[in-house]
Amino acid sequence: MKEPCPAPPEFDDDFRAKLGDLIRWRRDVRRFKADAVDPALVRHLLALASCSPSVGHSQPWRFVLVESAERRAAVRASFKRANADALQSYSGEQKHLYARLKLEGLEQAPVQLAVFVDESTLVGSGLGRRTMPETLHYSVVAAIQTLWLAARACGLGIGWISILEPDVINSVLDVPPEWQLIAYLCVGWPEEEHLDHELERAGWESNIDRSKTILVR
Amino acid sequence: MKEPCPAPPEFDDDFRAKLGDLIRWRRDVRRFKADAVDPALVRHLLALASCSPSVGHSQPWRFVLVESAERRAAVRASFKRANADALQSYSGEQKHLYARLKLEGLEQAPVQLAVFVDESTLVGSGLGRRTMPETLHYSVVAAIQTLWLAARACGLGIGWISILEPDVINSVLDVPPEWQLIAYLCVGWPEEEHLDHELERAGWESNIDRSKTILVR
Repeated sequence: MKEPCPAPPEFDDDFRAKLGDLIRWRRDVRRFKADAVDPALVRHLLALASCSPSVGHSQPWRFVLVESAERRAAVRASFKRANADALQSYSGEQKHLYARLKLEGLEQAPVQLAVFVDESTLVGSGLGRRTMPETLHYSVVAAIQTLWLAARACGLGIGWISILEPDVINSVLDVPPEWQLIAYLCVGWPEEEHLDHELERAGWESNIDRSKTILVR
Repeated sequence: MKEPCPAPPEFDDDFRAKLGDLIRWRRDVRRFKADAVDPALVRHLLALASCSPSVGHSQPWRFVLVESAERRAAVRASFKRANADALQSYSGEQKHLYARLKLEGLEQAPVQLAVFVDESTLVGSGLGRRTMPETLHYSVVAAIQTLWLAARACGLGIGWISILEPDVINSVLDVPPEWQLIAYLCVGWPEEEHLDHELERAGWESNIDRSKTILVR
């Protein structure tokens, strides 16, 4: 027998205002407390993330919870190499500023999550990917942003690390070569909640004039 | 004088439950009512989307509100060509099923929004993009998912169209060649609110076993 259709939820002004707060107060977190995160909460958040849109309903997200100390150390070593290389690409005052930035929380974050796209998936039968195949990867990013917001609503912080060697991460985590790294996420309770952007605080970059990002045609 | 720091918002169980509903009830909408959408609401939603994370705080999202009837017709023509080509890639029963799918709401949607990444942006000074340059594109996807959820909380539906010729869209919308199309979004009031996935309804694809998308290492 078919389940009866549930009634659509109603969202009111209070909810929308809080959702706006949630969106504005989400931060890329690099400083975590040592406190553990309940594994059931992590699974709950991953289930919510899996309700995100995906091209052709392909659901290509693959989540790898990185728990082994050895693997975590190898990820940290990859960050250090990639970051040392990045530092050399800057010069002068910018190089000094870059060297002072805290760009990851790999030593403190109690939960570490590598997120991949499965490029070999047959789910969705290729629908929507013929002229824009990159939408498979984009689907995984949508899931990450859903996860990020849902985590923040629980008080959890997430930090996205992209200063890594993707091939090394595949190898360290022993995942299929058809899985491509989209993000490596540090998850945990943030040392501090704040509204201003981390890189604005550090003097690296400011908010741009938003009116310049919208055109009418 | 520096503004005093506002107190962090508090999110309670009620809010988290509603947020879960929002995430589960977001749909890719292809059937819209004719009713107009207040332009101020669209601007408000774009401002919220612009609070999304971006690599190195690069904020590379560029939003183009497509209002001209001629340009809209040219976008629709691009969809028709790309979709006819996609249809030919299927055969047998799947081809018949594909032909029956409604994959866009380009004729009905009152608001149409092309979303690009500005690959030429210097904002963020390249931070975080050295080993994973694709994170610039991913930043725009995060903004789209924020927009999608915030729109849904207002009762607005969004449909993401990827069955298009990206170069043609750049030309039709007269945007710089350094802007790469990430998504073309139809926005409007949905004919119906529903919990089940559009492509599951149509028999194209089902939810996958979520436990198979999570590994521990």
